[in-house]
Amino acid sequence: MSDTTDSDWQRTTIDSAQAAAHPETAQAVAKIKELRQSIDNIDSAIISLLAERFKATSRVGVLKASAGFAPEDMKREDYQIERLHRIAIDAGLDTDIAEMYREFVVTEAKKRHQRIAQAGGDPGVLDVFA
Amino acid sequence: MSDTTDSDWQRTTIDSAQAAAHPETAQAVAKIKELRQSIDNIDSAIISLLAERFKATSRVGVLKASAGFAPEDMKREDYQIERLHRIAIDAGLDTDIAEMYREFVVTEAKKRHQRIAQAGGDPGVLDVFA
Repeated sequence: MSDTTDSDWQRTTIDSAQAAAHPETAQAVAKIKELRQSIDNIDSAIISLLAERFKATSRVGVLKASAGFAPEDMKREDYQIERLHRIAIDAGLDTDIAEMYREFVVTEAKKRHQRIAQAGGDPGVLDVFA
Repeated sequence: MSDTTDSDWQRTTIDSAQAAAHPETAQAVAKIKELRQSIDNIDSAIISLLAERFKATSRVGVLKASAGFAPEDMKREDYQIERLHRIAIDAGLDTDIAEMYREFVVTEAKKRHQRIAQAGGDPGVLDVFA
């Protein structure tokens, strides 16, 4: 693609127009489209699992607030770090990604636990679709 | 828990010692433990799916590098934002969480695409366990 400008290189839209304009890339476009369908399916599954995860951590937040427990539990976090690291290696996932994932969900869960505690144990404070 | 100090409140370790010291919280401890087992199972599933997702995006990175495509594709990102927002609402997940998830995986995938492109299309550059 000798006619590719710098800005094109920064952002390439991969679609049938791209394939038509550069027939030599048509096969790559087709393969990328197929992989993207798998990526989309994986994202659907992960979003559904994240929904269940945050429902579970919201229940934990209510229990913690009613029992007077803190949002934070460092022993639990150490356990999670070690466990997710191990699972990531087994699954062939970069352990940095696993740790970023853990930090993301744990941080957001703790923020929500704090909001529940501040609302006197009412999980309705998180019910964004109510 | 009138004997709870400020620092205790900041960090509560939820375990059988906690339950023994404060019998009135034993039921909450038991319920939290049960929920945590579900949370751990969900995390195992998500880590496995993330492993598959990054394998797929790594393949996309190789195809993009060999075809001379950019790591970034804004039209694809707009599509993903709209799609994940919709799936999150259906699943009962805070759409902010869905967007944070998307930003996390897309940012990391793009970083890896750039590393593959810089390595002349060699995905081995990402093979952290080799």
